[in-house]
Amino acid sequence: MPMMKAVVKTAPKDGATEVTDRAKPVPGPGEVVIKVKATGICGTDRHIWHWDPSVQFMQTPVVYGHEFCGHVDSFGKDVADLKEGDYVSAEMHVVCGTCYQCRTGRGHICSKTKIYGLHHDGCFADYVKVPASNVLKLPSRISPRVGGFLDALGNATHTALAADLVGKKIAITGCGPIGAMAAAVCEFAGASELFLIDVSDQALKRSRNWAGMAGQRIPVNVLDTRGDGAAKALALIRERTGDGVDAVLEMSGAEPAINMALEIVRPGGQLCLLGLTSKKDVTIRDYSKNVVFKGVNVQAIIGRKMYGTWYSMLGMLEAGLDVEPIVTAEYDLTQFEQAMGTFDRGETWKVVLYPHGKPAAAPTRSA
Amino acid sequence: MPMMKAVVKTAPKDGATEVTDRAKPVPGPGEVVIKVKATGICGTDRHIWHWDPSVQFMQTPVVYGHEFCGHVDSFGKDVADLKEGDYVSAEMHVVCGTCYQCRTGRGHICSKTKIYGLHHDGCFADYVKVPASNVLKLPSRISPRVGGFLDALGNATHTALAADLVGKKIAITGCGPIGAMAAAVCEFAGASELFLIDVSDQALKRSRNWAGMAGQRIPVNVLDTRGDGAAKALALIRERTGDGVDAVLEMSGAEPAINMALEIVRPGGQLCLLGLTSKKDVTIRDYSKNVVFKGVNVQAIIGRKMYGTWYSMLGMLEAGLDVEPIVTAEYDLTQFEQAMGTFDRGETWKVVLYPHGKPAAAPTRSA
Amino acid sequence: MPMMKAVVKTAPKDGATEVTDRAKPVPGPGEVVIKVKATGICGTDRHIWHWDPSVQFMQTPVVYGHEFCGHVDSFGKDVADLKEGDYVSAEMHVVCGTCYQCRTGRGHICSKTKIYGLHHDGCFADYVKVPASNVLKLPSRISPRVGGFLDALGNATHTALAADLVGKKIAITGCGPIGAMAAAVCEFAGASELFLIDVSDQALKRSRNWAGMAGQRIPVNVLDTRGDGAAKALALIRERTGDGVDAVLEMSGAEPAINMALEIVRPGGQLCLLGLTSKKDVTIRDYSKNVVFKGVNVQAIIGRKMYGTWYSMLGMLEAGLDVEPIVTAEYDLTQFEQAMGTFDRGETWKVVLYPHGKPAAAPTRSA
Amino acid sequence: MPMMKAVVKTAPKDGATEVTDRAKPVPGPGEVVIKVKATGICGTDRHIWHWDPSVQFMQTPVVYGHEFCGHVDSFGKDVADLKEGDYVSAEMHVVCGTCYQCRTGRGHICSKTKIYGLHHDGCFADYVKVPASNVLKLPSRISPRVGGFLDALGNATHTALAADLVGKKIAITGCGPIGAMAAAVCEFAGASELFLIDVSDQALKRSRNWAGMAGQRIPVNVLDTRGDGAAKALALIRERTGDGVDAVLEMSGAEPAINMALEIVRPGGQLCLLGLTSKKDVTIRDYSKNVVFKGVNVQAIIGRKMYGTWYSMLGMLEAGLDVEPIVTAEYDLTQFEQAMGTFDRGETWKVVLYPHGKPAAAPTRSA
Repeated sequence: MPMMKAVVKTAPKDGATEVTDRAKPVPGPGEVVIKVKATGICGTDRHIWHWDPSVQFMQTPVVYGHEFCGHVDSFGKDVADLKEGDYVSAEMHVVCGTCYQCRTGRGHICSKTKIYGLHHDGCFADYVKVPASNVLKLPSRISPRVGGFLDALGNATHTALAADLVGKKIAITGCGPIGAMAAAVCEFAGASELFLIDVSDQALKRSRNWAGMAGQRIPVNVLDTRGDGAAKALALIRERTGDGVDAVLEMSGAEPAINMALEIVRPGGQLCLLGLTSKKDVTIRDYSKNVVFKGVNVQAIIGRKMYGTWYSMLGMLEAGLDVEPIVTAEYDLTQFEQAMGTFDRGETWKVVLYPHGKPAAAPTRSA
Repeated sequence: MPMMKAVVKTAPKDGATEVTDRAKPVPGPGEVVIKVKATGICGTDRHIWHWDPSVQFMQTPVVYGHEFCGHVDSFGKDVADLKEGDYVSAEMHVVCGTCYQCRTGRGHICSKTKIYGLHHDGCFADYVKVPASNVLKLPSRISPRVGGFLDALGNATHTALAADLVGKKIAITGCGPIGAMAAAVCEFAGASELFLIDVSDQALKRSRNWAGMAGQRIPVNVLDTRGDGAAKALALIRERTGDGVDAVLEMSGAEPAINMALEIVRPGGQLCLLGLTSKKDVTIRDYSKNVVFKGVNVQAIIGRKMYGTWYSMLGMLEAGLDVEPIVTAEYDLTQFEQAMGTFDRGETWKVVLYPHGKPAAAPTRSA
Repeated sequence: MPMMKAVVKTAPKDGATEVTDRAKPVPGPGEVVIKVKATGICGTDRHIWHWDPSVQFMQTPVVYGHEFCGHVDSFGKDVADLKEGDYVSAEMHVVCGTCYQCRTGRGHICSKTKIYGLHHDGCFADYVKVPASNVLKLPSRISPRVGGFLDALGNATHTALAADLVGKKIAITGCGPIGAMAAAVCEFAGASELFLIDVSDQALKRSRNWAGMAGQRIPVNVLDTRGDGAAKALALIRERTGDGVDAVLEMSGAEPAINMALEIVRPGGQLCLLGLTSKKDVTIRDYSKNVVFKGVNVQAIIGRKMYGTWYSMLGMLEAGLDVEPIVTAEYDLTQFEQAMGTFDRGETWKVVLYPHGKPAAAPTRSA
Repeated sequence: MPMMKAVVKTAPKDGATEVTDRAKPVPGPGEVVIKVKATGICGTDRHIWHWDPSVQFMQTPVVYGHEFCGHVDSFGKDVADLKEGDYVSAEMHVVCGTCYQCRTGRGHICSKTKIYGLHHDGCFADYVKVPASNVLKLPSRISPRVGGFLDALGNATHTALAADLVGKKIAITGCGPIGAMAAAVCEFAGASELFLIDVSDQALKRSRNWAGMAGQRIPVNVLDTRGDGAAKALALIRERTGDGVDAVLEMSGAEPAINMALEIVRPGGQLCLLGLTSKKDVTIRDYSKNVVFKGVNVQAIIGRKMYGTWYSMLGMLEAGLDVEPIVTAEYDLTQFEQAMGTFDRGETWKVVLYPHGKPAAAPTRSA
């Protein structure tokens, strides 16, 4: 039986992770096995690592990982349009296909969704098996470094494109990797000014770096809303926008950020909510004034539209959307523990892992 | 100087209301004076009556009233398309016309809105003066009884039409007069099933009456969510809908209703929020599960689209939308105190007042 | 081998149709065999009957029929959510599932669509085999008479719901069965006035009958646009609408109707185009004036949204949408030739066939 | 009486244009007089010059010109938010404000529209008088050269933003100045690839220049569709897109271009029609196949959304949208005849005129 390396959550407790040998998967009908080239660490992987309450539904052992790119290794019968060696990625939300949501073009909110890397074995491995229906071919212009985190970029794209961006002023609350990707999408898609809001030194520092590197076409304001920073941010936004930003992309899930979002959005503006809260409940301040009287529209975002978000994202990447600066650490897959430590301590934005060795030309950036 | 009767809030305190004589208004350029035929009492009038915090920005004395119909009495220069005797109503939100919202077809969220009946003299009077821009001609098929509360029906219409209704299952939380009007709109516009939710005996009784009278085309479920009624309602809705209603029209502003709305709406469904809260803050339960993971869309509603909502509403009324059963009390304008008492004690749905005498044929209904 | 009756196109020429014995189909994986209860004759069947150019891509022999209802007889493996005896219908456009359209929620415009009853055996038979993915369960409230033509009603629903209907004035050009169904949908979904336009005595007579029977809630104008009728129709529409109808549902494919649609629609209004032309080319009159300067929106309609249209349609039917009066002839399946003759001569609106005997209670209507 | 220079159409015949003295306008209530800094020549001005049938409704004498920028000189009473010296432009479509279109946020399709520069005196003059409601303040980042043709850029913006652009492949049929502006908007707003189609040597040459200068972020294909170029263009588009472009912006009004647009757009794609035809009628080829079966959406475009298009356009310009390369000739206003000659012979893209002298720093470009 051919074997492969994989990063496995071995038991339902903090840590409990091994880089170990597993049987290489074999594709059944309608399935594809992909040789993983690059794969990203996501916030959910950190929850799995720490065995946080939000992931305790998982059954161990299971292979981590739900964002990646690679090349088709083999496939079962009933697989059309793919051949060995194709450069691909895959949507790792696998949906039922038969519920009302799935049958009305909204598979991304199927309530029977299984996530590979949580419910089933994921892609922190030499090979990963996925349904052919979830595979997307990648244009060669997309580097493996970026191809390694398309699920995350897809979250950012889905959130950003839910708002009207062209010629509009947009705020982003929460500037972790996905917030930064959303900023890049906004810039690419014609936003006229960005306000990046965070409360962590590291996120703010990286955002300022990005604003210097990538935000040259449009004004990018990086705002630290700790302490009296919130009042200053509010004042600056009023000064630059008049009655508030056109839309806020809420990537943090933090109650103060959600309330700030409602405060800084203009009447009739839009909130796109991707961030999950660690608290169970969230208190909305001044509900009548900040929600109802404002006539706001709020769109909650989950996953990626299957597959509208993917096509828009691939189109942007093919046309030059640059999210490489968001990768600030790269490791061999076997260095998982070191990589996760760096990520866990907030010392990096996006971390990419390489099962078959880091590409020689890949510069390690830091921000 | 010609005089007229008017219901005036005379001082900034509870009660302090007189039916008294005032100068009949004279139209300036672009203004119209309308002889009031019928006018509705609204929840806001009750706040004015009690001098509740939400209306303490008002300057007294001021004439009450912001929903009515009548006939054009006179008009100033620069008024086109109107002639004496025309049967009309008017949008009583008067907007600036020059802000970003007004200039992009969203005057209903103009932050400089002045409401006649709050900021300026209203229509609880023999005559009322309004800008010609806000006047709408009424088809003769619309009875004065219904013409008397088109601003309120417009709120209901704006809220209901913000959702996709055709062939869809809709819940309404809060079955006061505007909730009942929204139910009538949903039925008219092709909804397939209604769930009317309240916590007051009187509202529930009237809703059941309405369901009997008007809800014969489609199934209407009236649900009392007090105590263990909430769990029963939830169970019934699951049974009838599978994964929840397609949309909820939230007309109450009550925190438990808002949370119930988030619970009963299906994934990917829609909430339309019209209800104002008496509490400053509202706590959303299970934010990640009930908001983000559900992928819901939330649209806050204010006023009426100027004037898209009016045209849709008038089209429905002309085609037979029946909201007459929602009028459950009618008085001469001079009986204001008695009318307000009835309304204040929750003994009625919609109350209509007649400055120039109640129409002979108007049956007083009760529910 | 179990056998069954079927109506078979036996050869590529006019007529060439036999009611004959065929092997009863056996379901493979993911397939369902349905015992056909009722099935409708559609305009396409007439093209097949006459071997018109538009269907000459077909391979014979093939079983006719692409709209029906029935009960699940048997199914292969990998079929979830269905059991023997379930009352169902099926979308007879079978799509590839892997193209851009299919993967972005627009399977109805998949360019690899195979239509059962044209490319594969259809439902003019005792039994029909379809992919489980295409099956929809029917509420028991839907009579077999109506369940027998849901594909056609779905065309009408798709077309009508592409326009904003609530409180709006709508014209329909072409009052064959699908035009009549669209009228019923418009009435149900809150339209305020209808203009039904045709040039055939029979269609006009049936439309007037329907307007008498079903059009009692809203005004329905039936307009004969032959000769100077066109000018009269135009005058009446101007009188009733001011600057034109809000939307036109174009069901005829006739060049004069398409041009009339552009003439009667108001500036900024909408055209929904379902009708196919027998001419190759269509000349648009006064293009700058009637198209560009009018700022119209034109939506071409094909098939049914898979499966959004189905859910909206089933919701309306469950809530009381009445299209039974549109069925004006019913036959046993073995009477196919007689049924087709009636239909071919334009002596009926919708014709429904029953493979296992006409339901006892089914009144034959005529209009 | 203060006088000013103006370019006046003096009589209803070809030519008949004088640069002459006229009384400087005086603002009435709600009006603003603006000192014109820069103003663009548009295709309509050429029609006026030649007294083509499309403009023969005009009354002479009238001052030409309907796109410009300048500084507020003076204003009447009832003008808020403006002060002397403000840098502004104005929408030159003046609408009624009271019709259904105007009252539903669609003033751009008001059928009572008066165009300054056609129905009333325009801006080819030292000063122009406009209603304050139509004035928009310009950010200082917008150069007068660009501010001089915002009505034209607004047409291009309105057309381009009617399509979904982000990550999408877009074709533009007709590469005159407005087509070129639309290309710039597409590039700015995140399109992934452009196909610029024309049949004139000059337009193709300039488009190739622009593709070299400005189209560096995304692939821009310039296609000459004369003769067998049409088949080659079709083949290239199929090769680059698979099943066609996502949207076509039709800027030419030419029958072959409209048919090509229908041929190259993918199923379910979008056509945005701005171009006016010189022919009265347009024949659509293969109507069933290229329109209905394709499920296309067609949006006709007129003017600019008032004022949504303006705000999106100003946001893009403020954020760096670069349309300066499209100005290929600049003249003093008194050189009108020379400027018009250049434009009339197709020797230039956009021509800008300066009533008070050409800005010193303005480089004359040629393409």
